[in-house]
Amino acid sequence: MIILEQLRQTLRQKGYGAIIFTGTDPHLSEYPPAHYLTRALFSGFKGSAGIVVITQEGGGLWTDSRYYIEGANSIKPYGLNLFKADQSDTLAVDKWLSNQLPEGAKVVVDFKTISINQALAWSKTLANKEQILVNDTDIVESIWQDRPALPKEKVFSISSEISGKKRKDTIDKFRRIMEERNIQYLPIMSIDEIAWFFDLRGYDVPFNPVFIAYALLTQQECYLYVDKVKLSDDLISLLEEDNIIIKDYDEFYTSLSEWKGNVLINTGNTNFYFYNQLSSDTKIVSDISPVALTKTIKNEVEIAGIRSVMERDGRAMVKFLMWYEANKANDISERDCADQLERYRREDESFYGLSFETIAGVNEHGAMPHYRVTDESNKILGENGLFLLDSGGQYYQGTTDITRTMGLRTYTKEMKRDYTLVLKGHLRLSRIPFPEGTRGAQIDALARIDLWSEAKDFGHGTGHGIGHFLNVHEGPISIRKNWVDIGMTEGMILSNEPGIYINGEYGVRIENLILAVPMVKNGMGNFLQWETLTLCPYDMDLIDMELLDKKEILQINKYHEKVYTRVSPLLNEEEKKWLKEKTLPLAIS
Amino acid sequence: MIILEQLRQTLRQKGYGAIIFTGTDPHLSEYPPAHYLTRALFSGFKGSAGIVVITQEGGGLWTDSRYYIEGANSIKPYGLNLFKADQSDTLAVDKWLSNQLPEGAKVVVDFKTISINQALAWSKTLANKEQILVNDTDIVESIWQDRPALPKEKVFSISSEISGKKRKDTIDKFRRIMEERNIQYLPIMSIDEIAWFFDLRGYDVPFNPVFIAYALLTQQECYLYVDKVKLSDDLISLLEEDNIIIKDYDEFYTSLSEWKGNVLINTGNTNFYFYNQLSSDTKIVSDISPVALTKTIKNEVEIAGIRSVMERDGRAMVKFLMWYEANKANDISERDCADQLERYRREDESFYGLSFETIAGVNEHGAMPHYRVTDESNKILGENGLFLLDSGGQYYQGTTDITRTMGLRTYTKEMKRDYTLVLKGHLRLSRIPFPEGTRGAQIDALARIDLWSEAKDFGHGTGHGIGHFLNVHEGPISIRKNWVDIGMTEGMILSNEPGIYINGEYGVRIENLILAVPMVKNGMGNFLQWETLTLCPYDMDLIDMELLDKKEILQINKYHEKVYTRVSPLLNEEEKKWLKEKTLPLAIS
Repeated sequence: MIILEQLRQTLRQKGYGAIIFTGTDPHLSEYPPAHYLTRALFSGFKGSAGIVVITQEGGGLWTDSRYYIEGANSIKPYGLNLFKADQSDTLAVDKWLSNQLPEGAKVVVDFKTISINQALAWSKTLANKEQILVNDTDIVESIWQDRPALPKEKVFSISSEISGKKRKDTIDKFRRIMEERNIQYLPIMSIDEIAWFFDLRGYDVPFNPVFIAYALLTQQECYLYVDKVKLSDDLISLLEEDNIIIKDYDEFYTSLSEWKGNVLINTGNTNFYFYNQLSSDTKIVSDISPVALTKTIKNEVEIAGIRSVMERDGRAMVKFLMWYEANKANDISERDCADQLERYRREDESFYGLSFETIAGVNEHGAMPHYRVTDESNKILGENGLFLLDSGGQYYQGTTDITRTMGLRTYTKEMKRDYTLVLKGHLRLSRIPFPEGTRGAQIDALARIDLWSEAKDFGHGTGHGIGHFLNVHEGPISIRKNWVDIGMTEGMILSNEPGIYINGEYGVRIENLILAVPMVKNGMGNFLQWETLTLCPYDMDLIDMELLDKKEILQINKYHEKVYTRVSPLLNEEEKKWLKEKTLPLAIS
Repeated sequence: MIILEQLRQTLRQKGYGAIIFTGTDPHLSEYPPAHYLTRALFSGFKGSAGIVVITQEGGGLWTDSRYYIEGANSIKPYGLNLFKADQSDTLAVDKWLSNQLPEGAKVVVDFKTISINQALAWSKTLANKEQILVNDTDIVESIWQDRPALPKEKVFSISSEISGKKRKDTIDKFRRIMEERNIQYLPIMSIDEIAWFFDLRGYDVPFNPVFIAYALLTQQECYLYVDKVKLSDDLISLLEEDNIIIKDYDEFYTSLSEWKGNVLINTGNTNFYFYNQLSSDTKIVSDISPVALTKTIKNEVEIAGIRSVMERDGRAMVKFLMWYEANKANDISERDCADQLERYRREDESFYGLSFETIAGVNEHGAMPHYRVTDESNKILGENGLFLLDSGGQYYQGTTDITRTMGLRTYTKEMKRDYTLVLKGHLRLSRIPFPEGTRGAQIDALARIDLWSEAKDFGHGTGHGIGHFLNVHEGPISIRKNWVDIGMTEGMILSNEPGIYINGEYGVRIENLILAVPMVKNGMGNFLQWETLTLCPYDMDLIDMELLDKKEILQINKYHEKVYTRVSPLLNEEEKKWLKEKTLPLAIS
């Protein structure tokens, strides 16, 4: 790799020990625009989570179990090592650097692409050998000749009929929060928080309807820092009506050193460059962003929107499943399936685009939780096994994310057993009510215990938050093994997606979106329950009926009845007939 | 209350705004010796968790839901207010003090009875109004005329046949840990950690076989700070053989200011007085105590010991249950039951004493999770309802803790339903295997979901760690809603005790001790499962069979078969016959 050699030469010339690529952007986005894809450039790795370190002679990729296979493959041509970051005997990036590099070494990282907490923790480790982090962005600039510019796509406004709120009210609401908490500055730096806050959307990042910007709220002013070329005159007038002051994107950092007072940021989610610009007249109050927190609780309009979107997304899925059944013996490929499903989704006029690149993986490809079909990998589905299809759409009234696992022409008893174990966990998680305030980590195991009973498990979270016509992965809430100290409340939407992955053989995942709704409030708690939003039948042929109990059968039947009732009015007679058959009640033995 | 008036007068004389009683001792024990029961003296409150604040005019008790009823009753004669500490709209102690007291007020607390974290957090809040914490122990000393002295009971040594380890090896082991972590000073200040570390036991605290002491380990020396009158000459020789240096209890704090190097303590569990004695030449490394962590993992000898103890504790329980069945129509009282069970336990020659004061509560008394029978409260069991009996023994080879809920002569359908829901959760928690490293908070819900499904819940943790011939509540591990970042590993013993409490009516709790043992290790994890240690039948008459599935019935039958096999060899013919009947397999419908 010539580019990697150029990079190492520059490191030697400038006397740097190493350079780190975190794979993110100044907004610490999970999916940054092409301008920031330096990690992929120098390592080949395109996953959503991983850190690449390049030293003068070597280096490696630190990533988690989701990306062991894909990561190892992508870095091979670059001669880098794979570090399994989630295994307890793997050295962390900072410890490894400290060991590898000599006393006093300098480690380059773009301070805008690393969180305050991460940078401070690494600095502390490096300090043991008098090593330091340095912010040098010229290196990449000089090597990357055809670096894509920052996107200049237009931004558009969404109405309160979609968002369920008005800009002016949002601004007032957060000013009240700031007043109560004695906060003088509320910077908003995550781009999906900005989109939500201002009821604006954009085209800057594939699959995520967001745009590159910063924002700042004070009691007196509300600033939006954005490349003005992205805003139409009409939109500027609209924003100015609500006293929003438009400034250039690059101006955001210029005024920081003049701030005096309390600044609320999440130091785990705010870049280190920002931190270094603040003067000693500011006091950082670190907490979860109140914007992020409010955004997780969907309002009535958003909930009505996603409920209606699910009927249309369900229609696309039903049409696809019908097509799949008719064609699975006809040498169709993974890509054929992904394309066909996208076509059905596009038939809906409120469809805006996919919410992520479809995962269509047959057998060993399905065993990779984040597989993406490429020209090289694309496979004919074939005769025996399972086909895993994880996809979603962005609609103006909401974002969808659904996984179904389907049988090919034949499949083994073991595949059916695994499918059913996953289904049991998926059903239990959505069936069990819980007291308001329950943390995601407390209920994650509900989707795993059938697998645990057979000494099986899966390596990803059970559920993630999801935006409203926004990012398909929306923090800070989740249902996973890791503790996130945020209680579940009414209006939160999460995915419910347990799975199992038999390396090199097959994968199963079943995913619906679920919404927390009230059940009953009494002396023992305010109990909530999950309403399943997604409307699409499970593959009943894959169910091993011997493993299901009466409660589970009734739950499937009730769900399938709902699917038919809600989706069939959108179908033609033939499709209706097909869906009726696929949602017939299972018999209780 | 004269004593409270004296206290307030002293506060006024000395110009203090308030005094705080944390209810603990310099070792931050859950159950301190009588010398430190200042909280009870000035408030009447005797629970295991609560903070009392006395101001010049008012004050109150902050405690959690376990103690709402008991707490309110005990503080009534003292004219104090009850603050429900675990409700989100209750002001925390520090915020309340800050609001109530004028600018610059001084708040007294014995710095030896408050953790570093707590004291620093409170100081920060108080600082907003220039208020401070002050350490004045003379006040209590001058008012409390007949204050009990610190106990002078003898300390005794336990052999490696009981503890499964040798003092010398323990010392070496922790010196290696210190070396690896670059720690120069390892103070041991929790008295149960000291007892475990030195294989010593004592009589200083009711129910807990511990003694008041401090200890300190360095690479060169191992100090035990203890009132020498507690040690026989033989014991002193024995300890000196292992190069343990005996010093006076009071000497512990004198050398602190001379320490130079890294000190490992848990700042959440180490007193603030200690912290104030350290010089700037020491660096505090705060982490969970490696002694506490090692202690939670029981060795083979300890495990063999507790398994055998359980057979004898099971015999006592079986004898009691037989007696109970024969006498429940004969006007027996709560105290009669507690006494009778203790008599049966005392028949065993390795019995040392109760592991806590027996909770014997009928109906509304059973609805109080921490009820203790008194002369005033003692009740005849009566005709209709449930009787909750939570008890345990200290044996030389282990500590037990068991709860059974029994029916009186009659009981309602609702009581049976609640009993069965609690039983289902209790069974599931012990039935489900889990990957090593799973946190307690991840599996706590397994014992709750049957209750949650009916909008019910219980307000205490599902499980606590337990010592080996040591404290019945042993940190830091637990199975509860709160996150404790310690993974479950082989050899850990916890209680499994879900319940339900219908205020003013009845309570149900079912408790066994469970031990984490290996199941299978494979590519998806190192799976562990629970071995139930406790050997005593459940009350089958209280089971609503319609609520049990086949898996649960088989689990009960298998458990009851084990109970009979293991306990019956210790019983006479009549008892055997009775137990056989009580452990007959339930039919699968």
